[in-house]
Amino acid sequence: MFKVNENYLKLPGSYLFSTIGKKVAAYTAAHPEKEIIRLGIGDVTQPLAPAIIEAMHKAVDEMACKETFKGYAPDLGYEFLRSAIAKNDYQDRGCDIAADEIFVSDGAKCDCSNIQEIFSADCRIAVCDPVYPVYVDSNVMAGRAGEYNTVTEMFSNVIYMPCTEGNNFSPEFPKENPDLIYLCYPNNPTGATITKDELQGWVDYANKIGAVILYDAAYEAYISEADVPHSIYECEGARTCAIEMRSFSKNAGFTGVRLGFTVVPKELKDADGVALHGLWARRHGTKYNGAPYIIQKAGEAVYSEAGKAQLKEQVAYYMNNAKVIYDGLKEAGFSVSGGVNAPYIWLKTPGNMTSWEFFDHLLEDVNVVGTPGSGFGPSGEGYFRLTAFGTYENTVKAVERMKTLL
Amino acid sequence: MFKVNENYLKLPGSYLFSTIGKKVAAYTAAHPEKEIIRLGIGDVTQPLAPAIIEAMHKAVDEMACKETFKGYAPDLGYEFLRSAIAKNDYQDRGCDIAADEIFVSDGAKCDCSNIQEIFSADCRIAVCDPVYPVYVDSNVMAGRAGEYNTVTEMFSNVIYMPCTEGNNFSPEFPKENPDLIYLCYPNNPTGATITKDELQGWVDYANKIGAVILYDAAYEAYISEADVPHSIYECEGARTCAIEMRSFSKNAGFTGVRLGFTVVPKELKDADGVALHGLWARRHGTKYNGAPYIIQKAGEAVYSEAGKAQLKEQVAYYMNNAKVIYDGLKEAGFSVSGGVNAPYIWLKTPGNMTSWEFFDHLLEDVNVVGTPGSGFGPSGEGYFRLTAFGTYENTVKAVERMKTLL
Repeated sequence: MFKVNENYLKLPGSYLFSTIGKKVAAYTAAHPEKEIIRLGIGDVTQPLAPAIIEAMHKAVDEMACKETFKGYAPDLGYEFLRSAIAKNDYQDRGCDIAADEIFVSDGAKCDCSNIQEIFSADCRIAVCDPVYPVYVDSNVMAGRAGEYNTVTEMFSNVIYMPCTEGNNFSPEFPKENPDLIYLCYPNNPTGATITKDELQGWVDYANKIGAVILYDAAYEAYISEADVPHSIYECEGARTCAIEMRSFSKNAGFTGVRLGFTVVPKELKDADGVALHGLWARRHGTKYNGAPYIIQKAGEAVYSEAGKAQLKEQVAYYMNNAKVIYDGLKEAGFSVSGGVNAPYIWLKTPGNMTSWEFFDHLLEDVNVVGTPGSGFGPSGEGYFRLTAFGTYENTVKAVERMKTLL
Repeated sequence: MFKVNENYLKLPGSYLFSTIGKKVAAYTAAHPEKEIIRLGIGDVTQPLAPAIIEAMHKAVDEMACKETFKGYAPDLGYEFLRSAIAKNDYQDRGCDIAADEIFVSDGAKCDCSNIQEIFSADCRIAVCDPVYPVYVDSNVMAGRAGEYNTVTEMFSNVIYMPCTEGNNFSPEFPKENPDLIYLCYPNNPTGATITKDELQGWVDYANKIGAVILYDAAYEAYISEADVPHSIYECEGARTCAIEMRSFSKNAGFTGVRLGFTVVPKELKDADGVALHGLWARRHGTKYNGAPYIIQKAGEAVYSEAGKAQLKEQVAYYMNNAKVIYDGLKEAGFSVSGGVNAPYIWLKTPGNMTSWEFFDHLLEDVNVVGTPGSGFGPSGEGYFRLTAFGTYENTVKAVERMKTLL
């Protein structure tokens, strides 16, 4: 008789944001009169920019007409979008990335979770701790993580790189050599960043030990400081050791539109000389069928002059929220970090509360929803994530409410 | 140093439709003056129906407005779409399927290739031969298929169920017991169908041996005969042994829009009592981020009264093409089958040509593109697939051209 993939049974509890959703739903059901402010899940609230709306309407009209109707998209994305990405996100920044090294997808979450599939089951992964749960969970499902220890809350075969106040939320090279290194900058959940020199250090390290860096740059648009790299390909040697994943969710508000991409340079080869570019292309061709034409046209509009100007404003709106949270909570006496080059504020829970205790406290006492740091890994315990993606009005209100907690 | 997933290296050649694409591109480059008619890949040519276009414009406008903007979709699909599917595709046909057993996705190709992931690596799969390549290739990538034999063109650990003229393109129960049985009706590539009694036989067989049937019903809308089941859940006992996958690509022309769904009944459990419903939900929650709101609204419009009427016409248009091909080629002396409950015509290559020989012959001599039967498996050798998804004018022209071949 058939059996299930037993690796799935090793996953502890449910996906973090599902748990939060259930808790909030239960509270709302019991207190329907309360006005909840959600700064938990990193979901945007501003409507799509006019240039994007216009492009989508136009694309919908094309689908209505025999002469301009589009069937299956090219497996790896339309040329118009791949070229716009290569030019704007890479070549204009001096990064040597060609259009045919861009793989368009329905979002960075899918790419982040699927990318492990092209690697050997024996590869050891290293992740920051705390970390976006998808990196670890997708490897658990693939049988690469080992066994879960309920005391340490760690998997036996995963190399954890703690990011704490002690190291300024910046991981050190691990003691054991990993094969795959997940890095996310600007960081989710801590909002920390990395300088170009520091990132160059990781690239050199990866090339030296023969590891691949899986670089999640979903929050790139929020970088405000000059010394922070927008892409790992700004570093020398990254073409032989790095895959970069990007999203349109946060720079263009596409969380409900779904568009992202992954960059796989052609030089990136394993110990036997097998190129990852061809493997990822094969995965796309076999297990994916392209992003919708309408959505890819929306993506193209992100790079138009009008789109760029409108989205700069949108990002500024959220970054102002980040400043409101950061300044307000700091002034109130909270210990906060992040929020300068990232839409996330990372705060220490007051009074030695655990992350989930603080979550309940915040939800029940002032009706604000955030994300418990421990949900991102054991080193996140005692921390809490707030996002800047609310409306300005709600953000101000949430901060005022939180001030009453101290 | 890191290594790749070596299972990928076991895949023979490239994905079938990529190979065809390259051959056609090379021919077109060499003969730019020739007018090629494409009846190869199953891609639609009719524009989206007006009801769908209207729904999409409306949804785009909602995304433009703060009050109606939608961020992340619910992991498993919007309630409005899941309910419409459950009602129209199942409950109205007397099938006991609830809305929360519907998992909305970006297409049946993704679901068909991802579904194997929730099963043990030890599960043995059985497939029809010829077969949609994605079923086998996704299992090869997961290491479940064994080794490829270049002589037999079969994988050592896959149970092949030949579908030939001899058994009227209807597979027999395999001699060895499989754990996962892929069935596709109406069938791609042969266009064959199954009666309700025959399908009940498969359900009984699966329940008896403890196997799961992965039932691909992507072409359900093309069923024209009364005795052909539209869903496997029309059979008694299917809730304990069957997963059904459906697509909007062929009933609504969504090949470039991307929408599909998978049904996982809650009773479906493995040898240890683990429910597949929860596992598939966990996969969706961890490795997928929902279909775009705009696309799900388009899906909802498929079930509106206007949408239903418009799509009935669209399907009739393609089925008329199928009749043109079937009747025309039969009259010309070809041996043909399919085309009555499916948009595919399966023909025997004339003069003992191999499938690829006939492909080249057809491309070079009359500039018509089809799909070589051998691309779907060894028992497809000597056969050829034509699709009804072209325009009427091109379909008539292609048949006229093909008549000159005999």
